[in-house]
Amino acid sequence: MGVFTMSDSVKYLLPEDRIPRAWYNIAADLPEPPPAVLHPGTGQPIGPADLSAIFPMPLILQEVAQDREIEIPDPVRDVYKLWRPSPLYRALRLERALDTPARIFYKYEGVSPAGSHKPNTAVAQAYFNRESGFTKLSTETGAGQWGSSLAFAGSVFGLEVKVYMVKVSFQQKPYRRALMETYGATCIPSPSEETDCGRAILAATPDSPGSLGIAISEAVEVAAKNPDTNYSLGSVLNHVLLHQTVIGLEAIEQMEMAGYWPDVVIGCAGGGSNFAGLAFPFIGRKLREGTDMRIIAVEPSACPTLTRGTYAYDFGDTAHLTPLVKMYTLGSQFVPPGFHAGGLRYHGMAPMVSHVKELGLIEARAVHQTPCFEAGVVFARAEGIVPAPETTHAIRVAIDEALTCKADGRARTILFNLSGHGHFDMQAYTDYFAGKLEDRDYDEASLRDALAALPQVAA
Amino acid sequence: MGVFTMSDSVKYLLPEDRIPRAWYNIAADLPEPPPAVLHPGTGQPIGPADLSAIFPMPLILQEVAQDREIEIPDPVRDVYKLWRPSPLYRALRLERALDTPARIFYKYEGVSPAGSHKPNTAVAQAYFNRESGFTKLSTETGAGQWGSSLAFAGSVFGLEVKVYMVKVSFQQKPYRRALMETYGATCIPSPSEETDCGRAILAATPDSPGSLGIAISEAVEVAAKNPDTNYSLGSVLNHVLLHQTVIGLEAIEQMEMAGYWPDVVIGCAGGGSNFAGLAFPFIGRKLREGTDMRIIAVEPSACPTLTRGTYAYDFGDTAHLTPLVKMYTLGSQFVPPGFHAGGLRYHGMAPMVSHVKELGLIEARAVHQTPCFEAGVVFARAEGIVPAPETTHAIRVAIDEALTCKADGRARTILFNLSGHGHFDMQAYTDYFAGKLEDRDYDEASLRDALAALPQVAA
Repeated sequence: MGVFTMSDSVKYLLPEDRIPRAWYNIAADLPEPPPAVLHPGTGQPIGPADLSAIFPMPLILQEVAQDREIEIPDPVRDVYKLWRPSPLYRALRLERALDTPARIFYKYEGVSPAGSHKPNTAVAQAYFNRESGFTKLSTETGAGQWGSSLAFAGSVFGLEVKVYMVKVSFQQKPYRRALMETYGATCIPSPSEETDCGRAILAATPDSPGSLGIAISEAVEVAAKNPDTNYSLGSVLNHVLLHQTVIGLEAIEQMEMAGYWPDVVIGCAGGGSNFAGLAFPFIGRKLREGTDMRIIAVEPSACPTLTRGTYAYDFGDTAHLTPLVKMYTLGSQFVPPGFHAGGLRYHGMAPMVSHVKELGLIEARAVHQTPCFEAGVVFARAEGIVPAPETTHAIRVAIDEALTCKADGRARTILFNLSGHGHFDMQAYTDYFAGKLEDRDYDEASLRDALAALPQVAA
Repeated sequence: MGVFTMSDSVKYLLPEDRIPRAWYNIAADLPEPPPAVLHPGTGQPIGPADLSAIFPMPLILQEVAQDREIEIPDPVRDVYKLWRPSPLYRALRLERALDTPARIFYKYEGVSPAGSHKPNTAVAQAYFNRESGFTKLSTETGAGQWGSSLAFAGSVFGLEVKVYMVKVSFQQKPYRRALMETYGATCIPSPSEETDCGRAILAATPDSPGSLGIAISEAVEVAAKNPDTNYSLGSVLNHVLLHQTVIGLEAIEQMEMAGYWPDVVIGCAGGGSNFAGLAFPFIGRKLREGTDMRIIAVEPSACPTLTRGTYAYDFGDTAHLTPLVKMYTLGSQFVPPGFHAGGLRYHGMAPMVSHVKELGLIEARAVHQTPCFEAGVVFARAEGIVPAPETTHAIRVAIDEALTCKADGRARTILFNLSGHGHFDMQAYTDYFAGKLEDRDYDEASLRDALAALPQVAA
């Protein structure tokens, strides 16, 4: 049994007036700026005007901002109050189950209406779009976390939200669709007859199951063609990561309440937004004050962007509609094998996360899904919360670090981001208990081909 | 638009040390005791020995306790810390959406691991069973809320939990089963081959879809036959209602923080436990201090126990294995028409809730399910939380009361229990949006027959 008294505090709560008043912009503290975003036609750095067809100006300016603090508007903070500040937990029961001297803390973002960190940026994006005069948003969703978060944000600010949902997910996850509709959004299986892009794909392959790349293309097309409609993205971009920093800013204050500073900070990484949301404020402390800690991004072995990808200019989507960004990438044509963490299937990694990796400020680790679900079940039985499949990746590494502490006999402090609950992902647990999960690695030949197809950019 | 500033507080949080140290026992404050529980064979009041085959002595003593305060053991409070004190919310956005001068507050019990108020008693029951030397618990579940709550509680205290789940629910709700298995419980479709009762039913009707009555019989049989196994019930009994009073005790403190005292207190009522959990501490204030307020129990029109039932001695189950209790009942043979709030389908009402109704301390109201889902969707779009179908009944009446305030031009304060979220009930929302919900009332002839079959008890 680990050494602790159960009468210790389990939750560290902050009052509403401690919701951060500004997001933290890591660009202000980095020793060098990230590489420029390039126009795919000219190869030249893009400017705000290039993005104004689909994004409102406040978000475009946040994308390139250099100020350390970006003020959070009061109406956004007022919506955050519905679930923020989110609790920081000390996982005393997990520590006891592992019999480890480690102190394990987790920041729980599953308390949001949609059940993950995604509403932190959805609410901000909906607000800035409405303030800029737009009345409709289009977006894509795969597993449905992002689509339901933007649907919620749209309902709060009175925006019409149209979500293009990958057709196979639309069919397999009817309850995510029901959640979006409950929030008043329209959910359309993609490819659809509503866009040129969708019609072209359906003409060629009438039974297309869809893909995130196709759904992005449909959502972007709708935004580009309709002056009252903008496009909204749930990860990858600088302004999205910026909005997520409320997680780490609150966590720093809560760790100080708890009286411990983390030796290790852990987050799962798909596009990179929940990881950055927790990690960037801690990296800022490291850069400004020299506070030492390890920071680990955890990704699936089946889609190992940071651990097996190349740091290169690439498109953000499969249809090559986006600008070129320099990032760790497996190639935009890369298709990972099937696995259950739908939010960790992206071929690239947020440029800013890639940049801090390149600067040596973070580590990356790849894990297989079966040991992740094992970790998720150990966690659920100890702490009660059933984690999302994506989140189990962070838990796996947090548990591994705690077991290393046990082997070493050292009481390190571990902090991870419990980015979401798994209430809408129980099929994955059903498959796990039925022994149906496969730990397939990516296909080497397929990765080689995808990397060979990277666009040629004169650096 | 309602009159408020959005800078007002939305959540009223209590620190962990404000988790109540004692449950509130309403028996201490009632002007007269409830009628005795009778042995079905002798017609005489039962004693503790009659219940000791399936319940541990601490719970039996709580069932008949007269003390106002029953101490909550520290290990139970330690588990409560995982989610308690639960937040009290001011529904500012709902008030604005309704354009009402009413102040609407809700106590949110969906923050628990299983997503409802049920773990408040599951944890206590698991603890007292373990302390009394029992290592296994058996129970039944319909929709799955109770089964998953006891599964969680069993995982925390190291008890084996076996859940007999109504077969048709087992087949239609695989994700509730996955949740129970994630917590380490065994979930068995009922009727099963594991019990005499189950085998007899399967021999007669091999394709029986099961019923809550059959599942109770199986769970009770297993507990009665195995010395290491006890039975656990999720509602109706006095000790279950007692454990739920943490809801109301916290809510009183939080309403005082908010600076308002409720004019109306509302809860949905199936077996009666979430309603009693919120209402009983307020009724205690009313009885001891004369504080005036209205208290409303809301039930479905399809199963209108309090509004159309008879106050009489009846069995708690369909198979007539239980003692006779005096309660509002539709008759143990009553079968309601199909509707989505699986937790509100019980033929009776907790004897203690029935008694306070008989004493004139509470009102009852019956509502149809379609207006309940309408209310649930209005609520979700304003407040973000998607409520369980059962909970929408409380929301419907809270909204109706708020609209009455608007019509009257009076700013009353309304408090309701948001007993659970609807994450595992999204099929109900899908059916609602598809226009597939039916508002069928109960069958009058069937009710007449069920009431005619009530047992004859010499009062």
